Amino acid sequence: MRGVIMYGPGDVRVEDREKPTIVEPTDAIIRVTSACICGSDLWPYRGAENAEWPVPMGHEYVGVVEEIGAEVRNVALGDFVVGSFFASDNTCEICRAGYQTHCIHRQPGAATGSQSEYLRVPLADGTLIATPTRPTPEQERGLLAASDVLGTGWFAAVAAEAGPGKTVAVVGDGAVGLLGILAAKQLGAERIIAFSRHADRQALARTFGATDIVRERGDEGVAKVKELTGGLGAHSTIEAVGTQESMMQAIRATRAGGHVGYVGVAHGVSLDGLELFFSGVHLHGGPAPVRRFLPELIDLIMTDRITPGDVFDLTLPVEQAAEGYRAMDERRAIKVLLTF
Amino acid sequence: MRGVIMYGPGDVRVEDREKPTIVEPTDAIIRVTSACICGSDLWPYRGAENAEWPVPMGHEYVGVVEEIGAEVRNVALGDFVVGSFFASDNTCEICRAGYQTHCIHRQPGAATGSQSEYLRVPLADGTLIATPTRPTPEQERGLLAASDVLGTGWFAAVAAEAGPGKTVAVVGDGAVGLLGILAAKQLGAERIIAFSRHADRQALARTFGATDIVRERGDEGVAKVKELTGGLGAHSTIEAVGTQESMMQAIRATRAGGHVGYVGVAHGVSLDGLELFFSGVHLHGGPAPVRRFLPELIDLIMTDRITPGDVFDLTLPVEQAAEGYRAMDERRAIKVLLTF
Repeated sequence: MRGVIMYGPGDVRVEDREKPTIVEPTDAIIRVTSACICGSDLWPYRGAENAEWPVPMGHEYVGVVEEIGAEVRNVALGDFVVGSFFASDNTCEICRAGYQTHCIHRQPGAATGSQSEYLRVPLADGTLIATPTRPTPEQERGLLAASDVLGTGWFAAVAAEAGPGKTVAVVGDGAVGLLGILAAKQLGAERIIAFSRHADRQALARTFGATDIVRERGDEGVAKVKELTGGLGAHSTIEAVGTQESMMQAIRATRAGGHVGYVGVAHGVSLDGLELFFSGVHLHGGPAPVRRFLPELIDLIMTDRITPGDVFDLTLPVEQAAEGYRAMDERRAIKVLLTF
Repeated sequence: MRGVIMYGPGDVRVEDREKPTIVEPTDAIIRVTSACICGSDLWPYRGAENAEWPVPMGHEYVGVVEEIGAEVRNVALGDFVVGSFFASDNTCEICRAGYQTHCIHRQPGAATGSQSEYLRVPLADGTLIATPTRPTPEQERGLLAASDVLGTGWFAAVAAEAGPGKTVAVVGDGAVGLLGILAAKQLGAERIIAFSRHADRQALARTFGATDIVRERGDEGVAKVKELTGGLGAHSTIEAVGTQESMMQAIRATRAGGHVGYVGVAHGVSLDGLELFFSGVHLHGGPAPVRRFLPELIDLIMTDRITPGDVFDLTLPVEQAAEGYRAMDERRAIKVLLTF
């Protein structure tokens, strides 16, 4: 089968890979119908993350169940399925509390290599969900977004306690931040302030529900949010970048007693205890338990109430994956969808 | 009037001070009937905090209203009152959301010098609450605890979302940690694990509701909590120390999706973003908005349903304040009450 492999920073190739097979009786093999490139795939691409090269790429996927292990009960051959990038049993105490990315049997790298024609998904019963019907092409794009960026943006909005009467600020105008806007809007937020300097992303932010755009960053951006909120700051802030600057921007833009939902993988971030103490904010985040939200997200997508697939502004056949990585790295594309 | 002054680390004296007067029409002057020494008073005592010596000491108080400014409406001459260590208007948007320590008109050092016969309390209407009747001596001790350590422990328990079905771990066996145990118990926690190595504090912890005592600290203490919770960690952890070790102990003792309520003033604490990210905990804390909880706490105390005054294990006349500081510094006393 064909699949995307990264050989080192900036070196993306599409090659023949061995088709995966059932290893555990709880596995499923799915034929990937579409996959995509994640902002987090750019960390190794830019040399900002060490890896044992070569690395099979991707962790977002939708597809059709091709084969199941003897113990799989919840999905059947031929089902169209969506899953999270972490495999989880969805039955342990931590899963039942909604934290499937911390499942006691979790397999964090389970979906690694999803930018390939086939993918082995462990703990299929706890990880995959079948759609009620075969999705339309637009729905399929939405479901693919749900497998990570929408689920992650949604978690951030929930962690930030976005809701009616709330002013929500969103740090990061990548796919996760943009879909955090969509989530905040769906959750009933009154006002949504998006930080963005890019016209195309600003336009999508407004489509998804942003009411205000702030071009300034760092403490200038914070001052702007304060200005827009009577000096108090946002009730809820979504952090979807993962740098020291973005994290401090998020914390400082939030009023005391407000909530910061952070989902950018915190690279080299260090929080000063005393500043955090006196900020009075709530802080919650981490790897998003996408599985918690999938049933609701699938329903919203399959009934055409949300179209999160709009974040894909470049669609390429998998053979052109290298161009997809370049386009995202150079910020020519927000998010790239790969077809098979 | 007599009052406690610190002249430098370890140098506590009781001297004649000028009696305070009404400065703003929103002020009240109260005759302090009892005050106490706070764990945070030990930071300058131990030279761990810079100060502009000499410093009038204390920020916890109960007493009788002696004089009010022209605009004060909520308390009257002769009222027995309890207040928080931060003055707040209790009417702004932040106060209404329950974060009076971040009130837009807050005066953080407002109660400084409460270890004196008289105290000026600014923003009296938003800061003080009168008790329905004159308290008994035991109730007065409880109300004095409510003015800081109980209110702070209570906030920590609420921030940690202690409640029915929850296992709560408590880092810190000082007055705040011990009263955090009392709060967790009142909030309905199922199991309360206290970290403590001191027999007297362990005994008080059990009186207040602790079901388990862990003597180990740091990662050994964390391992013990995991062992007691089926490998998962506590649902809720109260952090009431404020050091790097105690903060990490609290975060690591908490399961993913659980809540850490931290109220120890974070001296020299630095949180690694990546560890926090992958911990999956909720983090909330800061200077406790004691005012939020005072009506409920006063009711519980005045109806004898809780006796938080039990944390005072040494009572001294104010003239012996220096001995009170020594006793707390040497951990011979948990908390010292000063009488006038």
